[in-house]
Amino acid sequence: MKKFEEKTISSEHIFSGRMIDLKVDTVSLPNGETSTREIVTHPGAVAIIALTDDQKVVVVEQYRKPLEKTLLEIPAGKLDAGEDPAETARRELEEETGYQAKQLKYLTSFYTSPGFANEILYLYLAEQLTLVEDGRQLDEDEFVEVYEYTIEELEMFEKSQRIHDIKTSYAIQYLKLHLK
Amino acid sequence: MKKFEEKTISSEHIFSGRMIDLKVDTVSLPNGETSTREIVTHPGAVAIIALTDDQKVVVVEQYRKPLEKTLLEIPAGKLDAGEDPAETARRELEEETGYQAKQLKYLTSFYTSPGFANEILYLYLAEQLTLVEDGRQLDEDEFVEVYEYTIEELEMFEKSQRIHDIKTSYAIQYLKLHLK
Repeated sequence: MKKFEEKTISSEHIFSGRMIDLKVDTVSLPNGETSTREIVTHPGAVAIIALTDDQKVVVVEQYRKPLEKTLLEIPAGKLDAGEDPAETARRELEEETGYQAKQLKYLTSFYTSPGFANEILYLYLAEQLTLVEDGRQLDEDEFVEVYEYTIEELEMFEKSQRIHDIKTSYAIQYLKLHLK
Repeated sequence: MKKFEEKTISSEHIFSGRMIDLKVDTVSLPNGETSTREIVTHPGAVAIIALTDDQKVVVVEQYRKPLEKTLLEIPAGKLDAGEDPAETARRELEEETGYQAKQLKYLTSFYTSPGFANEILYLYLAEQLTLVEDGRQLDEDEFVEVYEYTIEELEMFEKSQRIHDIKTSYAIQYLKLHLK
């Protein structure tokens, strides 16, 4: 849908990085005026709700430089160029946690910050997990610790803000709605 | 918590905008190596689950330039400098929808994209709404249409991706968990 569409008059490239790019578009507004939009472009990402056979959730702890804080989150990672999101989900789950999933189900997708970024997040449910020997393969600048917690424990960590990102809070609600 | 902390060695300022800034930090990793982190800084934002007396949810439709798409979302807006989030929530709700809330309850907060941005979102529940004459006051580059839908209708729009952002999907789950 294109209601209130803002047509691009010109686009200024500001930055190309390893993870994100930045541009500023000059747009014509529905009333004919012009304005600017600051736009972060991102390749998209996946996140995985990984459930062990005893209904525990696999989560990872890592330092998040933008927040200067260590967070506990569901596993996630960005898409490589041309990669199918389901493939990314399998790859990231194994690289970050060492788990392979016999069952991987696509749940939904959503934009994380539609006001300034085009990042889309594809969410998967991974079940029937088996630990793969030497499966964990972190990027050289990635430091991640793996834990398994019950939903009740995750809710406690949400209260103490050890969990403090929206995808993990979404995952907790999802599990409360869908696990018996 | 500071496990796996990445200390800043130097910080390069890339861009200052109306909504976001961008910097690239060079950091020392836990293993002594160095790497870079691309960081979008954002003032933070609020989002409001606004419920009418007949249990409908007030949502707004607007064009999101980063996605080149019109989305239906719960009302939201960024914090002005020094502004208390509850005050922002009241202001944004009234400016975007014309509604004042007799009851405003803080629910939770979360980071939206902890991998590359420090944006934090404060979520409120607004109830006992009254429409204020001339309450709506959009920014001059803001074009927004207001609707009220049942939760079932919102779920349909999620399926058709007219709703396609994570805060609104979180809000739908919240209401399913907390409304009888």
